[in-house]
Amino acid sequence: MEHENTGKSDLYGNIWRIDLTTKELQIEPVPGSWSQLGGRALIARVLLDEVPPNCEPLGQFNKLIFAPGLLVGHRLSSCDRISIGSKSPLTRGVKEANAGGKTGLHMARLGIKVLILEGEAAKNSLWTIYLNRDGIKFLNADGLRGLGVYECAKMLVGDFGKKVAISLIGPAGEMKLKAAGIQNLDKDQVPSRIAARGGLGAVMGTKRVKAIVFDDDGCSDPPVVDIAGFKASKKGYNKALSDHPQTKVYFDYGTAAMTQMCNGFGGMPTRNFSSGVFEVADKISGEYLREILLKRAGQSKTAHACMVGCSIQCSNVFGDAGGEEIVSPIEYETIGLMGSNLGINDLDTIAKLNYEVNDLGLDSIEIGAALGVSAEAGLMDFGDGYRALELVKEIRAGSALGRILGNGVDCTGNVLGIERIPAVKKQAISAYDPRAIKGTGVTYATSPQGADHTSGLTIRANIDHLNPEGQVEVSRTAQFKSAGYDSLGVCAFAGFGFSLAPELISKFLNCRYGWDVSEDIVLELGKKCIDLEIMFNKQAGFTNTDDRIPEWMTLEQLPPHNSVFDVPDAELDSIFA
Amino acid sequence: MEHENTGKSDLYGNIWRIDLTTKELQIEPVPGSWSQLGGRALIARVLLDEVPPNCEPLGQFNKLIFAPGLLVGHRLSSCDRISIGSKSPLTRGVKEANAGGKTGLHMARLGIKVLILEGEAAKNSLWTIYLNRDGIKFLNADGLRGLGVYECAKMLVGDFGKKVAISLIGPAGEMKLKAAGIQNLDKDQVPSRIAARGGLGAVMGTKRVKAIVFDDDGCSDPPVVDIAGFKASKKGYNKALSDHPQTKVYFDYGTAAMTQMCNGFGGMPTRNFSSGVFEVADKISGEYLREILLKRAGQSKTAHACMVGCSIQCSNVFGDAGGEEIVSPIEYETIGLMGSNLGINDLDTIAKLNYEVNDLGLDSIEIGAALGVSAEAGLMDFGDGYRALELVKEIRAGSALGRILGNGVDCTGNVLGIERIPAVKKQAISAYDPRAIKGTGVTYATSPQGADHTSGLTIRANIDHLNPEGQVEVSRTAQFKSAGYDSLGVCAFAGFGFSLAPELISKFLNCRYGWDVSEDIVLELGKKCIDLEIMFNKQAGFTNTDDRIPEWMTLEQLPPHNSVFDVPDAELDSIFA
Repeated sequence: MEHENTGKSDLYGNIWRIDLTTKELQIEPVPGSWSQLGGRALIARVLLDEVPPNCEPLGQFNKLIFAPGLLVGHRLSSCDRISIGSKSPLTRGVKEANAGGKTGLHMARLGIKVLILEGEAAKNSLWTIYLNRDGIKFLNADGLRGLGVYECAKMLVGDFGKKVAISLIGPAGEMKLKAAGIQNLDKDQVPSRIAARGGLGAVMGTKRVKAIVFDDDGCSDPPVVDIAGFKASKKGYNKALSDHPQTKVYFDYGTAAMTQMCNGFGGMPTRNFSSGVFEVADKISGEYLREILLKRAGQSKTAHACMVGCSIQCSNVFGDAGGEEIVSPIEYETIGLMGSNLGINDLDTIAKLNYEVNDLGLDSIEIGAALGVSAEAGLMDFGDGYRALELVKEIRAGSALGRILGNGVDCTGNVLGIERIPAVKKQAISAYDPRAIKGTGVTYATSPQGADHTSGLTIRANIDHLNPEGQVEVSRTAQFKSAGYDSLGVCAFAGFGFSLAPELISKFLNCRYGWDVSEDIVLELGKKCIDLEIMFNKQAGFTNTDDRIPEWMTLEQLPPHNSVFDVPDAELDSIFA
Repeated sequence: MEHENTGKSDLYGNIWRIDLTTKELQIEPVPGSWSQLGGRALIARVLLDEVPPNCEPLGQFNKLIFAPGLLVGHRLSSCDRISIGSKSPLTRGVKEANAGGKTGLHMARLGIKVLILEGEAAKNSLWTIYLNRDGIKFLNADGLRGLGVYECAKMLVGDFGKKVAISLIGPAGEMKLKAAGIQNLDKDQVPSRIAARGGLGAVMGTKRVKAIVFDDDGCSDPPVVDIAGFKASKKGYNKALSDHPQTKVYFDYGTAAMTQMCNGFGGMPTRNFSSGVFEVADKISGEYLREILLKRAGQSKTAHACMVGCSIQCSNVFGDAGGEEIVSPIEYETIGLMGSNLGINDLDTIAKLNYEVNDLGLDSIEIGAALGVSAEAGLMDFGDGYRALELVKEIRAGSALGRILGNGVDCTGNVLGIERIPAVKKQAISAYDPRAIKGTGVTYATSPQGADHTSGLTIRANIDHLNPEGQVEVSRTAQFKSAGYDSLGVCAFAGFGFSLAPELISKFLNCRYGWDVSEDIVLELGKKCIDLEIMFNKQAGFTNTDDRIPEWMTLEQLPPHNSVFDVPDAELDSIFA
């Protein structure tokens, strides 16, 4: 690796590199080839430069990388997301997962462009890492061992105060389960903003780090080259965002607004992806969710911001009949995978399942899919929420069955001998059946990240979702855009605003960094990001054969449209050629 | 697929193709491109011609292939082996596993050059297929469901008589476990000749076939073009075989003779491959085994032939103190993986474990390795044979833990979160630690079959096994030779005879088929076979990154020589370039 010092460390921040073997922090200038990248694209670059692509993801050569996006640090609505990455223990390829909350903001204010954890801590040790403007402290975390995410976060907030940001893992990460994510505090100190996918929590567990505390006390916001221009853009952005009709939809219904839409397209995962329509979808819809929350009041909230400054507030607080919070937030993907996919039509049960997997520090998509497969294997009846909760408790107990489920849907299906596994690159398909929303199927198949709707959802595209033609183009654009947003730290829903004022992103970047980039920057960044990711995966041994929807989904017709996934392989292979 | 009819169906036999969907047998002439291939090489050819390399191994497009080697059918000592193959559910690549017993002989006499099972039987059905010179019968096998291999074989022999050959699966194959093999009757109707590796039993289970009965009643031996020449060669071969000193060693001690040799080289797998020396290796040695068997008498036998005509008789019958048979045979690989690798120093316990895995229809190497990893995970203490037996019984019970173990060492390690997994291409490393016998390590890494000593064992090569230099050349020759033998149906130990009279193989082939091949035919066949296998694997998505010894074996020193596996990647990649 050759690093050329840009001499602009204040502008770009620095690399903070933590060697877990020696417990030392080294602060390094950002090399030229890294400076114009952020978030997801920067993670791909760091992986290519520093991690042997064929290494064991849970071995000593893998690294855990935290990188705020390029626009993070300014409390722009929904633009302070944190990207976390590594070689994935689940897919064995490149991995980035991003989350809201306040980790990104604190890192940016600390001047950390990228945080890299490398090396190996002593066996059986467990650590909390505290970072502030003075540097690093390693704190013995034996007292936090095995703690659920909620209790652990509460203790850490007690120790470090309400102002800090925290990234932490639950028991699942400590157990090195491949569905383990990394949780981040939201602005109200709730540790529910999870970088969920691909087993990043297991990498953090392997590094023997329970939590990282980011304390930005005494720090300034990151520098802005043209402050007046930046402010003007912010004003325009806020207006555009509030003008867009979807902003209000997401404010009112959250991501659960998607239930009726996806069910209407016949793409709602139902009983382990055996139907695209859930006959009681109205009971798990955004509309019904809002009705319940308004009725219950108490701690329930229909809108809630995960980060300071967000005006969309797609998050919510789901309280029980007595007004007590069960979980916050409840999201569409969880409703799809732990609701209809399990035949469960009761939001309270889904909320309880959601709380449990959150507390364990697990990806609710991956676990929902694993439970669906386990139901097909006869371990639970579809619709039996009590049994589903029992199965999740097996994960906490660390039983053999619990470890199977906690390692995700591919592991579960393979161990239990189920052919109908909904996964690509071993990662669970999210809540849009690829046979009904074929563009998203193309994304699942070809994204270097494995099956993942956030890599390029096409459900809003103006296309016949059942027709295989033209889906590759739609997916390609969606993937570039998503990768661009993920490199900027921009939430998908911020896109509502930027769609009305597409010039604003380049304006923000030019004002922030003194650059001169055009409106094309999002797609350019996205394309660069995906190119780097494909390069890493190729060196890790991936080929076109990995870019496929599961064989059974190309054969088994999905009701009600009786469609199969039939975008030709050659078209899939052409997407990034 | 283009088939050119050779017009020599009597000489080469025919293709017998069974469609499980329609339950029909079609007998087809052998195409020109298949005629000069047999056994392992023919399987690779059939897979390339007929099975989509990227298909689901346990899906409807995979096929199960039985192919006797080119020299099978003449009762030449140790030359009647049967090759069975498929796309492997374990490695997801090309797979051939071969076995002794009488399946090969019966197929050759029935004129079956290759038997191909394709299509899908109805869900929840189970079948016995009966083949004789009149064709096929499908018999309902519901009464055999879940039966262990020993009882099932006894019932089938009761039904069909002692003269038939049978290939069958145990409960493990019915459960689609990826460590399930296919058992074959030996000449005494004992179903212990297992085509063990790579999960072929799971493919047969997916096809819903419990057993195939081959009845050669009324059939003649396969045609021989030059009968006199063949007879003369047979005489020379028998003499060469009996002249070779190793023939007597294997007659006296069986494969267990390897214990002291491998332990002496520091390559004996001990306590999940954490040492290359087992401190009480003498208690599980061939010498001690012979001493016990001679003392116990009763049903015990120090020498036993698995097929008619074998003069080496490396097999044995292991009886208990009261003279009752526990298992037949007990082999070195089982001693290594279920003995020293588990810290078990008691042959009676190893014999009982061996019987259990045989009866379940499982690969004892894969299960021994999985138990070693489960011991490292704390599920048993090393040396606790009682607990090891309990764990094997979990497999029979079909518990979550049992399914983990029954899916092999890679699955077990991944689910339990163990980094020290001894496997290549997800298949367990056999009883020669690659850090001490580095040429065999090269074979493990680069064989298209996955880790497998029978693909090219180098322990008898005249080389410093600890020096990484020159191992690639030694492995390459060993791999070509093994693939050649596996294509001929020739047992590795028949090689003792052929090493003294290398001209005999070509003489046999030329007399049998009217060919004019040279002494180089073994290596030529082997090279062709491996070329085809690599082609299949490449199309299935394999790359150089799959040709690697596990990372931890390149880092962790193996006592007593404190060696790591250090043959450079570039050399590994050059082996078949």
